[in-house]
Amino acid sequence: MIFCGIDDSEFIRGKVPMTKQEIRIITLTKARIAPSDVVYDIGAGTGSISIEAARIAHEGRVFAIEKNPDGVSLIKENMKKFQVDNVEVVSGVAPDALDGLPGCDAVIIGGSGRNMDDILDIVHDRLKLGGRVVLNCITIQTISSCLEYLRAHPDEFDYEAIQVQVNRLKAVGPYDMADAVNPIYIVTATKKG
Amino acid sequence: MIFCGIDDSEFIRGKVPMTKQEIRIITLTKARIAPSDVVYDIGAGTGSISIEAARIAHEGRVFAIEKNPDGVSLIKENMKKFQVDNVEVVSGVAPDALDGLPGCDAVIIGGSGRNMDDILDIVHDRLKLGGRVVLNCITIQTISSCLEYLRAHPDEFDYEAIQVQVNRLKAVGPYDMADAVNPIYIVTATKKG
Amino acid sequence: MIFCGIDDSEFIRGKVPMTKQEIRIITLTKARIAPSDVVYDIGAGTGSISIEAARIAHEGRVFAIEKNPDGVSLIKENMKKFQVDNVEVVSGVAPDALDGLPGCDAVIIGGSGRNMDDILDIVHDRLKLGGRVVLNCITIQTISSCLEYLRAHPDEFDYEAIQVQVNRLKAVGPYDMADAVNPIYIVTATKKG
Amino acid sequence: MIFCGIDDSEFIRGKVPMTKQEIRIITLTKARIAPSDVVYDIGAGTGSISIEAARIAHEGRVFAIEKNPDGVSLIKENMKKFQVDNVEVVSGVAPDALDGLPGCDAVIIGGSGRNMDDILDIVHDRLKLGGRVVLNCITIQTISSCLEYLRAHPDEFDYEAIQVQVNRLKAVGPYDMADAVNPIYIVTATKKG
Repeated sequence: MIFCGIDDSEFIRGKVPMTKQEIRIITLTKARIAPSDVVYDIGAGTGSISIEAARIAHEGRVFAIEKNPDGVSLIKENMKKFQVDNVEVVSGVAPDALDGLPGCDAVIIGGSGRNMDDILDIVHDRLKLGGRVVLNCITIQTISSCLEYLRAHPDEFDYEAIQVQVNRLKAVGPYDMADAVNPIYIVTATKKG
Repeated sequence: MIFCGIDDSEFIRGKVPMTKQEIRIITLTKARIAPSDVVYDIGAGTGSISIEAARIAHEGRVFAIEKNPDGVSLIKENMKKFQVDNVEVVSGVAPDALDGLPGCDAVIIGGSGRNMDDILDIVHDRLKLGGRVVLNCITIQTISSCLEYLRAHPDEFDYEAIQVQVNRLKAVGPYDMADAVNPIYIVTATKKG
Repeated sequence: MIFCGIDDSEFIRGKVPMTKQEIRIITLTKARIAPSDVVYDIGAGTGSISIEAARIAHEGRVFAIEKNPDGVSLIKENMKKFQVDNVEVVSGVAPDALDGLPGCDAVIIGGSGRNMDDILDIVHDRLKLGGRVVLNCITIQTISSCLEYLRAHPDEFDYEAIQVQVNRLKAVGPYDMADAVNPIYIVTATKKG
Repeated sequence: MIFCGIDDSEFIRGKVPMTKQEIRIITLTKARIAPSDVVYDIGAGTGSISIEAARIAHEGRVFAIEKNPDGVSLIKENMKKFQVDNVEVVSGVAPDALDGLPGCDAVIIGGSGRNMDDILDIVHDRLKLGGRVVLNCITIQTISSCLEYLRAHPDEFDYEAIQVQVNRLKAVGPYDMADAVNPIYIVTATKKG
């Protein structure tokens, strides 16, 4: 089995938006997930990140939090397809949906709605020292709120942030032509001691 | 141990250019390396890709081909630092330096000088069916030669190519300001049956 | 005389940061400056935008507002070099420095410090109907504040915003290699009637 | 009248691809067109560049070379709409279509098909000393051929090249989300004496 980096086309997706492979792999890498880790995947969508996280944390557990019922079904279908059994799907909205979950080693936030501050407060409580939260932000408002929170909590988290843009080359007759993919901000926050 | 994605700052580098983490991880992912694979890393530089490939292919072997003596030393230092013993450093220039190496499951080409066609010919011979060559191209001439070769060999390889650009956010007082990193083309060629 | 688009190297710059040609020309275009317009250039820096705006508004006037004394000197030197006499340099900080200036047809904001809301309030008062404010934002905080203001004032302004990234190809021996320039957000707000 | 930078939505376009405003304005700027210049626009498409060039060269003439009959009609419609009468539409393919045209001060090449070398040879003959050719390249093969030609003709042309990528922010409810536009290479070659 390949360690990581399933092709986008292999996931069952429906109409639910999915993190693209290149972004998914950078996100998972930044989260520094270890084999026995407990991982939260907040705003799990199709479950593409949960599935890959579960294969990396093959002796651990992944909690996939998703509010959209279509998403919840897709995650379950993808678990079956990829024969992953260490993902627990939590139907609901964070931070409420995090109630009762165990402490965690890594958190990935793909969608936070408007509750980012509350989510980050709780995630900080749950996260082990040195554990990482990785956020994917596709809007100016989300990256901005995220940085505002992290700047207001310098004793709780260190952070780094990048913007990544991918252009795919598309073959058109004898030519290879760039086809742009929307850029995304990836923020990595590490819990301080 | 984390599966993949060592921080750039952890590698010993000297003045040898190094593939940045985000590009390294996408490159390794596209190569689809399995635990017992034999991997060539052509133009290995500091060995950052070889080291990570060797940790993924922990039951396999990585051949790090590098012509620059400073690079050769750095690879050995990094192997020691990361306690990796399944990298074999080959001092020389591809394609000649590939003489006598065993067949392989994946190839990463970070630097090809002006011998890209010859290298790809030999790599094709050595590679298993379905095996992948991933090339990092930072110049127009290199991406162009690479695509020209692949278009001239439609029965030998399928390919996809992307351009990736990363901007790092740098904290300057109360602001987070984008700091651009040079973009790179990543080509993935899969050997056809 | 060329209509617009002076080369970066022709401006006298010292150590003051300067908007790069490609960004400058997009910014000036979005401002839709007409020959007899009155233009404010807030945070004028080296005066590169003021000089070009003054050549477009050759029957009008440009007010170059700049707080940094080095910048003020540079603007005057560049005016002399480019033989432009319809720029009036205002030494000070907006919004205070805008006191006593006449109404205007277009506004360019290269630097707003932390006073963006106050500046946009006053600029709205001064601007003619259909007049445009173009803002160059290099930080997440600035683009975010700018969008927050514009979303809070839907009856005052329409807006569009873009991010622009330029990579220069640098010749290195037989190769052309991308050299990244930091990206920038350009917001264009049009005063509604 | 505004000096330059017509909004994309103002042009009549049909299904013919059109250079976007930001790219158009950079291209026109790099061409350094003066009021009485003769300009060739090779691969004129909808005529958006020809129309703007004709307004800058208001005492000169623009030759819009276009092979596609739909394009030819659109250029004429756009000339009527923007009341531009100093564009001459040449229906045909460069370099043949350039036969009989007068010498020129600036050339813009939006589309060259596979005849780039021949076109650049003839353009060099026609162009005044110090005159500029600006090429928009959307494929790896085109930018590559273009650089190959220019590197093979160091006594004929100096050149610079950039890649430009624009992301538009799209308002989606309370959020502004990046919407990527395909990147483009812009090459500027200046005829040497």
